[in-house]
Amino acid sequence: MHRIKMIIEYDGSNYHGFQIQPNAHTIQAEIESSIEKLTGKPARIIAAGRTDSGVHALGQVIAFDTDSSIPPEKWQFALNSVLPVDIRIINSSLTRSDFHPRFDAISKNYIYKIYRQRSGSTFYRKYALLYYEDLDLGAMQTACKYFTGRHNFQAFCASGSSVKGYEREIINCQWKQELPFLTLEISANGFLYNMVRIIVGTMLEIGRHSYPPYTVQQMLNSGYRMEAGPTAPPQGLYLQKVVYGE
Amino acid sequence: MHRIKMIIEYDGSNYHGFQIQPNAHTIQAEIESSIEKLTGKPARIIAAGRTDSGVHALGQVIAFDTDSSIPPEKWQFALNSVLPVDIRIINSSLTRSDFHPRFDAISKNYIYKIYRQRSGSTFYRKYALLYYEDLDLGAMQTACKYFTGRHNFQAFCASGSSVKGYEREIINCQWKQELPFLTLEISANGFLYNMVRIIVGTMLEIGRHSYPPYTVQQMLNSGYRMEAGPTAPPQGLYLQKVVYGE
Repeated sequence: MHRIKMIIEYDGSNYHGFQIQPNAHTIQAEIESSIEKLTGKPARIIAAGRTDSGVHALGQVIAFDTDSSIPPEKWQFALNSVLPVDIRIINSSLTRSDFHPRFDAISKNYIYKIYRQRSGSTFYRKYALLYYEDLDLGAMQTACKYFTGRHNFQAFCASGSSVKGYEREIINCQWKQELPFLTLEISANGFLYNMVRIIVGTMLEIGRHSYPPYTVQQMLNSGYRMEAGPTAPPQGLYLQKVVYGE
Repeated sequence: MHRIKMIIEYDGSNYHGFQIQPNAHTIQAEIESSIEKLTGKPARIIAAGRTDSGVHALGQVIAFDTDSSIPPEKWQFALNSVLPVDIRIINSSLTRSDFHPRFDAISKNYIYKIYRQRSGSTFYRKYALLYYEDLDLGAMQTACKYFTGRHNFQAFCASGSSVKGYEREIINCQWKQELPFLTLEISANGFLYNMVRIIVGTMLEIGRHSYPPYTVQQMLNSGYRMEAGPTAPPQGLYLQKVVYGE
């Protein structure tokens, strides 16, 4: 047996998220059944992050064990020939037998794309949040500073999710405006469930002056989900890259 | 009765083209039924161009007659509230009672988008031609010069289509490279059936050195469809703008 590491991208529009579940069309199920088509044996993959329904990936990382004679770097082409076109393998390679895509990750980069123009918007409705109203970009950049650093992010975690701790470190958090797009780049050593989308939903409220940027500090202090803003919709979110120490 | 002119955009991915036909999901049918929802009366629209299945529009122009009391400039918002999200009205206005979107057009602009990069390609599979191999852009630009001007374009018209004449004038024809996209901009006083897609298919053959640019002149001279290149797929094509004399 040997372990294969793959970098993949997918259009999450037509899937009920990454993680396999009964009677649902998931990215994990597509990849596992595609591996089985090639090897004739059931496969189980592990991913760096479990993206939600409608969320996309440009650089998701997965790993799986196989005794197949397919050379590691050929898995990319072999799988792309059987996978649906909305899931693409970008790279495949041999990795060490104890490599774990999630536990070994040092940081993850997400982007959240907002489309700011009415013209052409229908082409981005599944690939960005369509948002036309005025936004105070300065206030949103100020809010980024409050998010950056090591904090307890319980207020920015979907209620009902169970994790051991809520402390995470945001390494980078900034808005890049390249019209017609406004894009949040955000990296952290880990993210809580729905954390990026709640951060974006909160920053949109700040951008439309529902409350000032410094209230982010109060939200972080409170730890109450209801203090933070709404959860932004999934279609703007992309898992862009997972960083490892190797 | 008064005549309303509208500029519309649509994602053609999920439609069997613009023109209404029995038992098919078409853009014309969606718009006409949406107008009927608002007015309670059957409507018939006329369009500047009948785009094929999978072809998109950024600036299609349509017109229809109505005795509705909806103010002309409000039709945009009224229709957008009932239309599916992949068809959007960009503008609506009152026009003269004999305005005809097709016959009155002075020229039409199309673009054809090619996505040149593997990374991220799945997000453009319905919105551009995915093409990764080398292309000789210089040869393709040279080919543009042969297409430009007044010519008999019978070799670049889908066989079996019946029109009165095959002479058209291409006013502008050039490739713009803004990686990861390579985009053909092409304007003419009119286009034959599949003309842009056959021109693109021919230029791709020239770009991969199947034949040199000057063979375009031979194709134009011959008038035989089989002399020209293949028909490029629909998903890269956008009706960008229709120009009127007003």
